[in-house]
Parts: sequence; structure tokens; C-alpha cells
Amino acid sequence: MALVVQKYGGTSVANAERIKAVAERVANRRKAGDNLVVVLSARSGDTDRLLALGREISSNPDPREMDVLLATGEQMTIALLSMALKDMGFDAISMTGYQAGIITNRSYSRARINWIETLPIMEKIHEGKIVVVAGFQGYDDEGNITTLGRGGSDTTAVALAAALSADMCEIYTDVEGVFTTDPNVYSKARKLDKISYMEMLEMASMGAKVLHLRSVEFGMKYHVPIMVLSSFTDAPGTLVTKEDAEMEKVVVSGITYNKNEARITITNVPDAPGMAAKVFRAISNANVNLDLIVQGSGSIMGRTNISFTVPRTDYEKTFKIAEKVAQEMDAGQVHGNPHIAKISVIGLGMRSHPGVASKMFETLARENINLKMISTSEIKISCIIDEKYTELAVRVLHDAFQLDKAPHERIEIQEEK
Amino acid sequence: MALVVQKYGGTSVANAERIKAVAERVANRRKAGDNLVVVLSARSGDTDRLLALGREISSNPDPREMDVLLATGEQMTIALLSMALKDMGFDAISMTGYQAGIITNRSYSRARINWIETLPIMEKIHEGKIVVVAGFQGYDDEGNITTLGRGGSDTTAVALAAALSADMCEIYTDVEGVFTTDPNVYSKARKLDKISYMEMLEMASMGAKVLHLRSVEFGMKYHVPIMVLSSFTDAPGTLVTKEDAEMEKVVVSGITYNKNEARITITNVPDAPGMAAKVFRAISNANVNLDLIVQGSGSIMGRTNISFTVPRTDYEKTFKIAEKVAQEMDAGQVHGNPHIAKISVIGLGMRSHPGVASKMFETLARENINLKMISTSEIKISCIIDEKYTELAVRVLHDAFQLDKAPHERIEIQEEK
Repeated sequence: MALVVQKYGGTSVANAERIKAVAERVANRRKAGDNLVVVLSARSGDTDRLLALGREISSNPDPREMDVLLATGEQMTIALLSMALKDMGFDAISMTGYQAGIITNRSYSRARINWIETLPIMEKIHEGKIVVVAGFQGYDDEGNITTLGRGGSDTTAVALAAALSADMCEIYTDVEGVFTTDPNVYSKARKLDKISYMEMLEMASMGAKVLHLRSVEFGMKYHVPIMVLSSFTDAPGTLVTKEDAEMEKVVVSGITYNKNEARITITNVPDAPGMAAKVFRAISNANVNLDLIVQGSGSIMGRTNISFTVPRTDYEKTFKIAEKVAQEMDAGQVHGNPHIAKISVIGLGMRSHPGVASKMFETLARENINLKMISTSEIKISCIIDEKYTELAVRVLHDAFQLDKAPHERIEIQEEK
Repeated sequence: MALVVQKYGGTSVANAERIKAVAERVANRRKAGDNLVVVLSARSGDTDRLLALGREISSNPDPREMDVLLATGEQMTIALLSMALKDMGFDAISMTGYQAGIITNRSYSRARINWIETLPIMEKIHEGKIVVVAGFQGYDDEGNITTLGRGGSDTTAVALAAALSADMCEIYTDVEGVFTTDPNVYSKARKLDKISYMEMLEMASMGAKVLHLRSVEFGMKYHVPIMVLSSFTDAPGTLVTKEDAEMEKVVVSGITYNKNEARITITNVPDAPGMAAKVFRAISNANVNLDLIVQGSGSIMGRTNISFTVPRTDYEKTFKIAEKVAQEMDAGQVHGNPHIAKISVIGLGMRSHPGVASKMFETLARENINLKMISTSEIKISCIIDEKYTELAVRVLHDAFQLDKAPHERIEIQEEK
């Protein structure tokens, strides 16, 4: 008899009909003999509606009270699913974040789970109950209600699976799993059977649509196998798990893109210690998250260029900061471009297959796509290109790395090796 | 520096604009120097919406889960009001029933408050905070969320006022106070400056529109002065308080009516011990609440009639029970009439002014209104009449007892004495 944590997202519980469908799915699993903890999000749209309600009251709503308001979303869905299960003759019980013993720090709206008091849930499991837990929420050591931020229900599910030593954490969503690239951009995208935590993290923006990144970190840290699958079909999903020998053989797992960034370049920065620190301290003080950073290779006449990308919504703000800092440090002009895209190639096997970067650059060059910045990590290569080439770049790279084929059918990279 | 508990009903917090108006009112009171605990209902309509949501899932929703669902209504309004107050620069904090230490029994949907752990609220008061508490909800000794039933927020407010030894409990609603009769039925209805707990309780259905009866019982038991007033005007309200010498002088305080009852009569019941018990045991076993009960005065040939009233919605069910019981006890036929109304005259001074009943009967007789049942208590006389005469009866009785005049201007009863 396995202990399984299942999580259903907002679209899966959007209305009474769908909640009943989730109840069916849970009930069938229960009948098969498993013990179940079910984590739910708020109905899709409810969190946005509650945020809007708060903003009607204040342009800058108090964060503690915003969390009290937001936490009602999941409290509604857990009650409704428990009702549906009871109506079908199954013994179910709902638990809010507080009742489920999910203790966080006090960072309202983006709290982190400190620990989980597992006794309340385990007691109900031992009584034979299906436990339905509110995702996204917890409470701090003074009993204040907190929320974990967007996608927080995934984190609740994985954290619960870790704390309860569950055999599996299943994340039900509105897609069938993790794909080699966005199927909306390229129809040849292929669903992955499994993927490592590391690759999933590197998939960043694309992966985050499927599974919240913090939950992947949690899964990696506590070795929780996470199955991502659709709550609307019975198709097998994608298993996110620790890397194994088989995965190592796969050179490239996926291609991702991100159109939400903007690039800023400061020219003629004095090539002296502390200059980069000065720039990035000023930017992070303004609460802007930097993504890629590239410092021009070598200096000319004691001067160098510094380029970086920031979220597109922070572009203008950051541009002004950059201009100010450039003036202070006696650097040159500041250039920027908000119409860029980041294309990334990700794969564990990259570590042992050196041909990936050159294949990527050649493939893009063949289409006359200019590379404005390049950044690499151990299992990921990212290029900044003109936004208008995004879809083209995704398609040609997907073809070049033969991602439409199953890993064992691909040949090219192995040959190059 | 007084400690005041204020309660605002659903219409007072129905939208952002009204919540801000409530915040203004609370803020002004705070500026005047009082410590404040504010109890809120859910936004008007929200409780019904949540009930409907539950019924979409199940025709007979699990009561525990229904309370989890319903409790979200007040959690939303307390967050919104606290945000509004913080936005205005006042230190406010919201508390759910759980956080506020409101401990109830486990009768889901109609729980009763067992006790209130006052420390959490008092701590916040001592920190100078305005404490905003979710009405209508509490939790049992196992941490399950419970709700107190319709009008439960009034009970929360009065119970908190009692537990915190508050100087006053103010109930803000959409009417200006308690009137001598329903102003919609008779435009001469006059607002009362004060009324005793006992009279308020006897006003039953009419009073309950203004103030939930259980909260009046609480107020009476713990001597909490309750002020009922409008959240939309600055008009003075009605004080519900313990009776005093001045009140004793007022013979009649108000006229109420109730059109939600039906009458049933069992004829020729054997006039032997235990017969009435048999009838009413069968009815209460069916969960029907009896109101008036009249047993025919004296027996004829060892037989008597038993008449009683029940909620109109339970009429048919009760009629069938009565027929069954009548057959079992060898009684006669069962008659019934669902088109009746109960008219009541209420007043503390009745106890020392014997002319009230005869004046009531004479006044109704003058209009050819037939009395089908009469029932009296120490401070109330009720008559069952044909439903169609309800409004006429209210008007002529209101005139006869001169309720449009201030108590000291009335003369008639005193003369009759």
C-alpha cells in the first residue's frame, strides 16, 4: 500500500464538474489501495480575483492581510473536493495550511516552508481518510497565515511528500508533461518520459509553466520522485527524478525560450576591480533580478563593456539606474534593447559531449540569426537573439538535435564526439 | 478609554466602497480614543453564493466541509477591512475565528460558543492595534472549523464583548434601530431609544431581522449593553439593555407579526394524561419546531382539542404526522390552516397594567378580526388571525396603544388602570 501525494492545479478544480472529475480520479486511486494526500490550488482565476479585490481597497495592500485574503481560495476548493468525495462514499477530510501543520517563515506572499508537523495528517491517514490539503498556504510561528507565492501549491505537494516519506508526488496539471520544447511553437515537440531535477531547473521559464521551480529544488533536495501529468487525460506523464546512467546518455533534452527579458549594455567601463560589483549592487538594491551577465572579453585601452539581461518589466527602471551608475564611474554610453529573446539548449549529456555549443551556433548562423550574448552553464547553453527570430530558432535547433526522435534513435552528436 | 466591540453586517461590507466607509467610521472612533474590536460578517450574498457552490457538488453537502467553505466569507472581509485601515495609517490586524480563540462545540452549521480565549485579542489591543475579527465562525477542541448559523456574527460580537468585559457592543446594520412595529407595514412606526433584553427576545421574528436572538440571550446573561444602529447614517440607535424603572412604566413597546406559521388542530383527543406528550413527541422527532400550543379549555365527554402552530414550511409534513398520531390515540379529525398570521403585543409594563389583553381583543374585534388562538406570556400577548388581516391588525393596534407617541405622552392605559 503506497502513500501518494497528488496535486491538482487551478484549471483542474475550476468548477463543480471538474471538481467531481478530480474526485473520480482520487476515488479510483483509493480503490486501487493507495493512501492519498491531495493538495489543491484555488480555482483558476480566483487568486487573480482576490488580488484585484485587495487592490480595490488599497494600491499597496498590507502583505499580511493580502495573505489572509488569498488563503481563502484554497480553503474553498479543499472543502468542495472533500464534499464530493464524501458524497461518493469515501471518507475524506479537508485541512487548511494551519490544520495540516505547514509552518513557514513570515515572508508574506513568498513564504518558505520551514517544517511540517506531520502528526495531524498521519493521524487521519491511519484512520483511513483521504486527506485534502490546501496548497500555497501555511502559518508562521505566531499563527499568522502566510502564502508561498505563485505556484506554491506544487511546493506544498512536494514538501508534504518529502515530510511524509511518500512513495510518489503526482502533479496533475493542464498539460501532459514536460516537452522537448513548447508544443505551441513547434508541433514536433515530444513529451519526455523522464527528466532530471537539474534539467528541469535549467528549463526555467518553460519548465515553470508545468512545475514551480522551488518545488523541483525541494524534490531534488529530498529525493522525491515527481510525476507531472494531465488531469484531463489518462496519458502517462513525465517523471522528474534524480539523474541516472540512461539520462547521462541523452545529450540534449530540450530547447527553451524566454521573451520576457531585456538587454542593457554599459560601454567603456573602466576595467578595474569593483566596477561590476558597483553596477550590480545598484541594480539589486532596486529589487531587479538579473539573469545573464556578460563582461566583454578583455579590455581595450583599459576599458570594457558590461552587458546583462533583466525582466522586461524592469527595463526602463534599470536603464535609468545604469545611466546614473555609468556617469558616476565615468563609463561610456548605455545601450539597451527590450526586444530580445533568450534561447537555451539543455541536457545532462552535454557534460560529456563537447559538440553541443558549436552545433547550436552553426545552426543559428545558417539562418542568419545573430548572437548578441552567449552564456553557458554545465548543462545549458543560452543565446540572446532578436525577438523576431524566436520561433525560427526553436524549430531549427529542435530539428538539429533530433528532439522529435526518441533519445536512442538520435545519432548525430554521438558521431561528432 | 473605553473598549468597544463593533459589528458590521453583510450589507455594510458589501463592496470596496462600503468597506472603506466602515474603515472611516472605525478610524473616527479610534481617533476619539477608544480601543476597538471590530466583528464582520461576510459580504452580503457571499454566504448564499458559497452555499450554492456546495450544493452544486452535493445535494446534501458534508456539514464539516460546508463550514470550512462558509468560513471563507468572513476571512475575506476581515482582510479587506484591515487593509483599508492600514492604508489610512491605522494599525489593524485581522483574526479568523481560530486566531481569535473562539471555541465552540462541534455542531457544524449551528455551533455554540463554549468559551473565548481572550489572550490573543487582548495582546493585540495592548499593542495599540484595532482588532478585526471574523464573525460567525469558531473552532472546536480538535481544531475543526465551525460556524454559528445565520446571524452568528451578532453572537460573536456580543460574546466577545462579554468575554473582554467591553463597555459597549455596537451592532451596525442596515436599519436605524428597533421600531415599535415594521415601518414597511405602518409608516407611523417609531424608533425605540431603548428596549429590554426580554422584550427584544419576545419580538422574535421582527427583532431577529435586526439582531440575532442568540446574541440577545448572550447579552442578557452577561449584562452586555447592545446598541443597534445604522452603518449608513449617524442617527442614534436603539439600546438593548437590562430593564430599569423607566422601562417598567412603558406598557407596550411594540407590535410584531409573523406570517410564516401554520395552524393544526387535532379534535376529540382523549382527555387523559400523556396524550399531549404523545402528539408533541412525534412532531419534535420529525425536527419540527412548535411555536404556540393551546389545549381546549376543559373537556367535553372526556375529550378535548389540541391546537398548535408550526413553521409554514413544515405544515404538510406535520399534518401527516398529526393524522397518524390522531389515529393511534383514537382522536377525531385533524384540521389545519396554513394561511394564518400571529400578531403579538409586547411590553414590560404589561406585568403591572392588566388592561392590555382586553384592549387588544376589543381593538381587533372592532375590525371584525376573529381570534383563532390566543397565547400569553408575562410580557407578550399573541393572537392567531387570518393572514389577510395582518397589516390592518398591526395598524389598529399601533394606534390603540399610541405607539406613534413617546412613552410619556401616552395616556390611555394609565387611565384604564
